[in-house]
Amino acid sequence: MSSLTQSMGTSTATSVTVKGQNLCEDLIGKKSFAEMLYLLVTNRLPTAGQAAALEACLVALMEHGWTPTSMISRLAIDSVPDQVQLAIAAGLLTVGPVFAGTMEGCAAILHEGLQQGITDGEEAARYCDQVVADFAARKELVPGFGHRVHKPVDPRTPAILNAAEAAGVAGRAVTLLKALSAAVDRARGKPITLNATGAIAAVLLDIGIPLKAMRGIAVVSRAGGLLGHIVEEEKQPTAREIWRLTRENIPYAEPDHE
Amino acid sequence: MSSLTQSMGTSTATSVTVKGQNLCEDLIGKKSFAEMLYLLVTNRLPTAGQAAALEACLVALMEHGWTPTSMISRLAIDSVPDQVQLAIAAGLLTVGPVFAGTMEGCAAILHEGLQQGITDGEEAARYCDQVVADFAARKELVPGFGHRVHKPVDPRTPAILNAAEAAGVAGRAVTLLKALSAAVDRARGKPITLNATGAIAAVLLDIGIPLKAMRGIAVVSRAGGLLGHIVEEEKQPTAREIWRLTRENIPYAEPDHE
Amino acid sequence: MSSLTQSMGTSTATSVTVKGQNLCEDLIGKKSFAEMLYLLVTNRLPTAGQAAALEACLVALMEHGWTPTSMISRLAIDSVPDQVQLAIAAGLLTVGPVFAGTMEGCAAILHEGLQQGITDGEEAARYCDQVVADFAARKELVPGFGHRVHKPVDPRTPAILNAAEAAGVAGRAVTLLKALSAAVDRARGKPITLNATGAIAAVLLDIGIPLKAMRGIAVVSRAGGLLGHIVEEEKQPTAREIWRLTRENIPYAEPDHE
Amino acid sequence: MSSLTQSMGTSTATSVTVKGQNLCEDLIGKKSFAEMLYLLVTNRLPTAGQAAALEACLVALMEHGWTPTSMISRLAIDSVPDQVQLAIAAGLLTVGPVFAGTMEGCAAILHEGLQQGITDGEEAARYCDQVVADFAARKELVPGFGHRVHKPVDPRTPAILNAAEAAGVAGRAVTLLKALSAAVDRARGKPITLNATGAIAAVLLDIGIPLKAMRGIAVVSRAGGLLGHIVEEEKQPTAREIWRLTRENIPYAEPDHE
Repeated sequence: MSSLTQSMGTSTATSVTVKGQNLCEDLIGKKSFAEMLYLLVTNRLPTAGQAAALEACLVALMEHGWTPTSMISRLAIDSVPDQVQLAIAAGLLTVGPVFAGTMEGCAAILHEGLQQGITDGEEAARYCDQVVADFAARKELVPGFGHRVHKPVDPRTPAILNAAEAAGVAGRAVTLLKALSAAVDRARGKPITLNATGAIAAVLLDIGIPLKAMRGIAVVSRAGGLLGHIVEEEKQPTAREIWRLTRENIPYAEPDHE
Repeated sequence: MSSLTQSMGTSTATSVTVKGQNLCEDLIGKKSFAEMLYLLVTNRLPTAGQAAALEACLVALMEHGWTPTSMISRLAIDSVPDQVQLAIAAGLLTVGPVFAGTMEGCAAILHEGLQQGITDGEEAARYCDQVVADFAARKELVPGFGHRVHKPVDPRTPAILNAAEAAGVAGRAVTLLKALSAAVDRARGKPITLNATGAIAAVLLDIGIPLKAMRGIAVVSRAGGLLGHIVEEEKQPTAREIWRLTRENIPYAEPDHE
Repeated sequence: MSSLTQSMGTSTATSVTVKGQNLCEDLIGKKSFAEMLYLLVTNRLPTAGQAAALEACLVALMEHGWTPTSMISRLAIDSVPDQVQLAIAAGLLTVGPVFAGTMEGCAAILHEGLQQGITDGEEAARYCDQVVADFAARKELVPGFGHRVHKPVDPRTPAILNAAEAAGVAGRAVTLLKALSAAVDRARGKPITLNATGAIAAVLLDIGIPLKAMRGIAVVSRAGGLLGHIVEEEKQPTAREIWRLTRENIPYAEPDHE
Repeated sequence: MSSLTQSMGTSTATSVTVKGQNLCEDLIGKKSFAEMLYLLVTNRLPTAGQAAALEACLVALMEHGWTPTSMISRLAIDSVPDQVQLAIAAGLLTVGPVFAGTMEGCAAILHEGLQQGITDGEEAARYCDQVVADFAARKELVPGFGHRVHKPVDPRTPAILNAAEAAGVAGRAVTLLKALSAAVDRARGKPITLNATGAIAAVLLDIGIPLKAMRGIAVVSRAGGLLGHIVEEEKQPTAREIWRLTRENIPYAEPDHE
């Protein structure tokens, strides 16, 4: 026996324990999927407000129409029809730095400020102006801001923030996010979209989701979206058409010999 | 433009539509993850009872302690530390016929009976006795029955069925499942465990989840469990120990030359 | 210590053993990748002829231009740029029943015939006519025959079979394949393409690759092709264009409420 | 039609082209898998010496006994028995920064030196001493050096370097690697193992494999090793034992509530 342990779950003949809770008496039928997810990630059950805010974030992250992620899952289920888990996993592999990165990047900015004891007021304005200047100096966008389609307002942003306010859990991270948004607008001289990934980053911080788990929250949520695509692909097939479009529009050309 | 379409989601500058619903006005902050999942899989929002029963099934499926699935995710995050999505996907790949198969198999038996108009009474007893006899003739277990640890009662089973009853959605599939359970006991001459996968199969059928989507429900739920394992692995590492146990206990031996 | 063993590899301070061979003295610099692959799959080193035929099959299977497999790898490397292994794995997941199935299906037909002691002559003609009739009765194509583009000759087929003949390893499976090809032509009243998957199935059988490992040979070979796509994607990006083509050509439509 | 192209492959009714080569006339039966791999990655066919050195590297990288990679593939094939590609892909996902990183890190050091025109002599000694000092200052190992089991000599290293010398392709990178090895020994005051990943990094650079493709070469090679494990797992099952060892040796303990 090694001295190592896990604290996820165990069972006896008559009970199942998950993270110190009695699964059958206290969780099944009593708690939601989001509450369980919070428990598994933080080792404690959420308050009602934390649970409501997590639901709002999960709902917002779940489905985005055509993305490389959904295209891959639909191509995969066409190739391996009976293995739904394979098609979900293939798509999830791409929920990486490019697509989940802005949420993580924005959360890191907010987290760093909060660690320094900064939330609002002049101090927050100074911190945020510096952050914005640093990104501008590197010619990078501040993560959580800007959107190709939604401008000047990402309609998901007020929906998410309102949900967190209504749940009574919008806290210091949301306050600092608003200061960051003001700093971005100031620097650019016009309103810049505060996008959904910024809002979700702040709300997840305020409900106590660790920075390291944030991309994972997006992955779990997107798993649900991909199941929707896979079920739909059977009735409204698109994979062969995506293949045809690719084949016919991106032809072969002789390689360069560098 | 091809004549094909998708019906998952789309967006304009000011709105996002998912399966015909307005994401920002009607879903974020208004609906739970489980309700969204139901919408994406069935094209309609669930009743409150359907949503509650789906939550119970998701909660029951989420976490199982040490399984090949969770071992793989923990090994993977140790090898590729910054790609949470990779570790979740690697684990999910194994939620396949062996581990999700009994749920699908039990659902298929119930679905077939319901398609034939059978729910309860003598007709159900006859149908179920035949099913049990067919499996016995192939020396196979009836899917949804038996458990290595939980006997004669899987404590999750009454929890799940009670949740469905309380939600008012336990219907014909649950009724037929009970007839099947009686038939199994009859054939074996003693109480045989009706396990959680059997109960979940019946409840998911009763709330209208298509047979083809069932394994996917398990996959989505398990994604949440794996995130828990991955977050925990950082604080309580086990991957190197699993490797050491394997290396030291399953040694090399010269191959046979057949 | 369990009583189980593995026979793949082990090492001491001064040597590495793989499948009973001394890696550093007898394999590195002495044997090719294909010879090592043969060793790992069959527990013995191949003859020169077996190795040459395996090389021919690996080369033939490696690259196919645009396929769902290569599209997925290119989409994936665009989403997770620094994890080459993730992009290769994502693509490989789809080398499944649809794309590798005809090779396996054709090999199974040949293997079954050879097990019955059938190779050529009247006996082979009878066996093959029956196989062809069985597939026709199920309105299925005989696996290994037909091709969308290459008709009436798949140019890879003679190249593969000639390589096996030149290597001196074309044996009973190739002979039976030719009988099967004649039976297909007879039934359809015209020459039907014997495609590359049929030729590879026969050659791999004749060099002693087990039926169960065949899809794996295709997977290993395709891993090399996908690396080519991934390296090329960096210089000649296509992923964003595949996404754009999909988005613009397969629009959103309201879902049916069935 | 977009203006984008791919240069991997295409076909007509009577021919298949791969990277500008005629697959059926010039590659199948004429070139090895390693030569094809070189072509796909570099856009040109290798010399005989380059091909021989690549074979040696592929052979050296292919199989390592028990690693998280091979454990995952064996667990996966036990869970999803008929999808070999899934089990190979699951394992390959972990050929990432931890396991392929030292090869990449060592190659980057050598590449940087060569870019500065440094190969041997005093200049090389100075460059290498600086590199070694930089790593020591960060309390990191120089990538490509040190080994848990093989000390003071990794037996694969001379085998790989000898193969490259014999093939006539050991060039400036191998020369600089030797200077680096001397610098490491100097700094530590005793012989430190130059391991296989260091030797492979130098040889792959000398034969013209781009830095970005190196991890991919390891992934392709390892795909072959994993097929060996998967084929073996069917005859000598270990997955259930790895699960049992884990379950019994890493027990559940109540979580901390931080």
